[in-house]
Amino acid sequence: MFEATKVGRTVGKQEFKAQRDELRTQLLEAQRDLRKSDTPVIVIVSGVEAAGKGEVVNRLNEWLDTRGVQTFAFWELSDEERERPRYWRFWRTLPLRGEISILFGGWYLAPIEYRFQGLCDDAALDAELNRIVEFERMMTHDGALVVKFWFHLSEQDQKRRLKELSRDDRSRWKMLPEKSKFSEQYHQFEHVAERVIRQSDRGICPWYLIEAENKRYRDLTVGKTLLQAIRARLNEPVAMEPPTPADRLELPESDGAQITLLDQMDLTLKLDRDSYKAELKLLQQEINELSWEAYKQHRSTVLVFEGVDAGGKGGAIRRITSAVDARLYRTMSVAAPSDEEKAHHYLWRFWRHVPRVGHMIIYDRSWYGRVLVERVEGFAKEAEWRRAYSEINEFEEQLVENGAILRKFWLQVSDQEQLRRFQDREDTPYKRYKITDEDWRNREKWPEYKAAVNEMVARTSTEDAPWTLVEGDDKPFARIKVLRTVCDAMRKALHEQKGKFTSSGVTRCGDQRMQDKQ
Amino acid sequence: MFEATKVGRTVGKQEFKAQRDELRTQLLEAQRDLRKSDTPVIVIVSGVEAAGKGEVVNRLNEWLDTRGVQTFAFWELSDEERERPRYWRFWRTLPLRGEISILFGGWYLAPIEYRFQGLCDDAALDAELNRIVEFERMMTHDGALVVKFWFHLSEQDQKRRLKELSRDDRSRWKMLPEKSKFSEQYHQFEHVAERVIRQSDRGICPWYLIEAENKRYRDLTVGKTLLQAIRARLNEPVAMEPPTPADRLELPESDGAQITLLDQMDLTLKLDRDSYKAELKLLQQEINELSWEAYKQHRSTVLVFEGVDAGGKGGAIRRITSAVDARLYRTMSVAAPSDEEKAHHYLWRFWRHVPRVGHMIIYDRSWYGRVLVERVEGFAKEAEWRRAYSEINEFEEQLVENGAILRKFWLQVSDQEQLRRFQDREDTPYKRYKITDEDWRNREKWPEYKAAVNEMVARTSTEDAPWTLVEGDDKPFARIKVLRTVCDAMRKALHEQKGKFTSSGVTRCGDQRMQDKQ
Repeated sequence: MFEATKVGRTVGKQEFKAQRDELRTQLLEAQRDLRKSDTPVIVIVSGVEAAGKGEVVNRLNEWLDTRGVQTFAFWELSDEERERPRYWRFWRTLPLRGEISILFGGWYLAPIEYRFQGLCDDAALDAELNRIVEFERMMTHDGALVVKFWFHLSEQDQKRRLKELSRDDRSRWKMLPEKSKFSEQYHQFEHVAERVIRQSDRGICPWYLIEAENKRYRDLTVGKTLLQAIRARLNEPVAMEPPTPADRLELPESDGAQITLLDQMDLTLKLDRDSYKAELKLLQQEINELSWEAYKQHRSTVLVFEGVDAGGKGGAIRRITSAVDARLYRTMSVAAPSDEEKAHHYLWRFWRHVPRVGHMIIYDRSWYGRVLVERVEGFAKEAEWRRAYSEINEFEEQLVENGAILRKFWLQVSDQEQLRRFQDREDTPYKRYKITDEDWRNREKWPEYKAAVNEMVARTSTEDAPWTLVEGDDKPFARIKVLRTVCDAMRKALHEQKGKFTSSGVTRCGDQRMQDKQ
Repeated sequence: MFEATKVGRTVGKQEFKAQRDELRTQLLEAQRDLRKSDTPVIVIVSGVEAAGKGEVVNRLNEWLDTRGVQTFAFWELSDEERERPRYWRFWRTLPLRGEISILFGGWYLAPIEYRFQGLCDDAALDAELNRIVEFERMMTHDGALVVKFWFHLSEQDQKRRLKELSRDDRSRWKMLPEKSKFSEQYHQFEHVAERVIRQSDRGICPWYLIEAENKRYRDLTVGKTLLQAIRARLNEPVAMEPPTPADRLELPESDGAQITLLDQMDLTLKLDRDSYKAELKLLQQEINELSWEAYKQHRSTVLVFEGVDAGGKGGAIRRITSAVDARLYRTMSVAAPSDEEKAHHYLWRFWRHVPRVGHMIIYDRSWYGRVLVERVEGFAKEAEWRRAYSEINEFEEQLVENGAILRKFWLQVSDQEQLRRFQDREDTPYKRYKITDEDWRNREKWPEYKAAVNEMVARTSTEDAPWTLVEGDDKPFARIKVLRTVCDAMRKALHEQKGKFTSSGVTRCGDQRMQDKQ
């Protein structure tokens, strides 16, 4: 694969000067057009040691208008990063629409080092690369342009460069002596690199392999490639993958065939007042203890509440929060996104607030808005909300991998009960703030919502992140069901399966927390 | 001081119920009005151990609409927090305008514990309290409402509560056994608390002392006090302190009396091409080494560039960045703030990006916009930009306390040279993006800018954060002057004064990094 990067391509000094100014002008113009577009640009700079990745980045920073360009290295893992799902640190570096992030190695850095050091096998590497491919595909579908450069040197060129670097006072070499292993095992590294590039080059975000021996050739090629990639994207936005016919289940036209999970709920379920009081007390005591235990075990708890308007989300949440120490939980009510949030993938705002280990976070509405309100109201295109199911599953899988105890609740009330509660809200002063015209409008769209809920549960209720449908007409019944479900999940994770952290049991290739422990 | 909190005030069960719903309604209404206002609300919940601070917070979360309310505890210091100026963690928790943050202890927590444990003396405590007072004053002037609650118990009530808590399974007590020291030294703690409250109660953000023995009394009083404080603020915004006449220096009306620092600059200074090349090489080599040394010594470097349009900021910055490893520096070009940034104090966006120790950050324009463009264009009111000088000095002092090497540059060019550069920009394709109509307009406002620059330098050039005025007509001269100034500052800090970290030599009371080392 790397043969083509060892053919000795060069650009002379005069040619370089002649082309540089023109290229620079075009890059700046492309950047100006980019700024008006919806496209965030992610540039990944990777390659063999001593290929001059730092020089390339400096060059790009020199040629581009630095407003709207940020550079990120992924050296030290901070504990805030360590205590969150691995990709949190990458989400932090994603550019706003119209801006550029340049990443040293990015999400490829850790897997390559891992495999190279023999900390994981090829299968684990491939699994991680699959995640990367999906991640890049998701970003691309969201409008991002991902440009990946790999800089390569022949073995003898690398040896010579490394020798120069070790002599050169300006080099960082003496600061990072452990890196010299790369040169000693040139072929092993090349072997890993080839696998990584091959597995992650699936057409949608291609790798650009660049011969790095001649710096002028290298830099001009990078500049021209980036320019061409931006121009191409601005001229022709990525085609959304249309939902394939297989995505849809065609239902026969009979009433019996249209039954949803929601229709099967027995909304007459009730709990008498005395049982409620007794159970509430026991469960609140238990959740308090469990939340401390989770804190001790560094496990986070993520609770998602969705439901019909006036379904009783707030009341159920309060029965949890009033029992848990206020220093241990956060509630997040999901309202309209800020402009920074709008300038990112819709999951960014949730990644942003992913809790550190040991804490509980309660979402009053959540990322499921994408497949509920955004679907029903048409805020998201069909292709967008259709692919959201797998994006959400992947997001939740990463939470669970990080040790999160994750449960999701849909609170359902009957049509009559909802009507009653709406009227009650309008009559009770301190509840009046809860009711808006929109709530009344939403009632009319109930058939669409029902289909959306049914599909959401079908596609995103997983073993580690199950949905619980809560019969909400009777508030005491609903609250106890929620509390009990949470307690059961926490008890199981913290006591019965104590120490068993990951869902799959597979150590991910590139999990830097693992490396740090060694 | 605490006598009035030990008189045995109570509220009966019936009274509580009767008042609660009304209070809740009013709180929700106040919150709704708040949301439409420019006022962020900061609620600080402090007090003696076992006074029920967690219960109060739970109660507030129950009564308020949790949308727009966030609660923060300050337990563990993350390394991202440890590696930045101490107040960074507090800036992270400040609410958006119209929203509420509830802080457990907030910035009072560490100083109280410090003094209580004898880690600092009264003088150091007072110094820290002065900083707090200024911080709260700054927030208040920016429109914030700061409501501070102190919950108190008599010695015997506290003893009883602690005993109950230690028996109670639901308590966090057993998780935090080291806290029991508080009860053993009731009077010592009360002594510290009194000093803290007295020193930080200067009228502008008063403390509310609340007897915590009777929980119903406690909670109702908190709710009513918060309600009243919000209502009062919404009815009557804080009066800005007008700039006092003493702030202005009245200059006699003669040309000789109007001379500014800028007029004294010798813009004819030049450097010949050969000297430039030789010096550039040496200085770039040195700054590369120094930046690695700073990384090793965990010192950050903060460089601020301001100057006239076409003053050569970009060129000077590139001579630094092209010599420093791209993994070690970040440049930040300051453009229009996002809506989240606008919904905070103007310094928030800069606090947000304060670098971790060991890294270099270069600002292409900066927080000085407040006293330059915002002053000249009238975006900030006179009272706002006038108090910005001390706010900025305080901000920079905190950077320096954290070990930052801080230098600020004003790049000046003559009127003719600026004109020449503007025309050149219009003629050179890849420079054209740099010139806008605004640049031409700014030229006309030069007299106002000159006064603003002169005052800025006079008020904010401090020993640890000096301004360097750079004669910019000759680009080689200017670039070398900048590089040499940076190298001198870094060399001095990293070699000559190695290990001497803080400017003042005073260990701040409440510096949790100190505690962690013990």
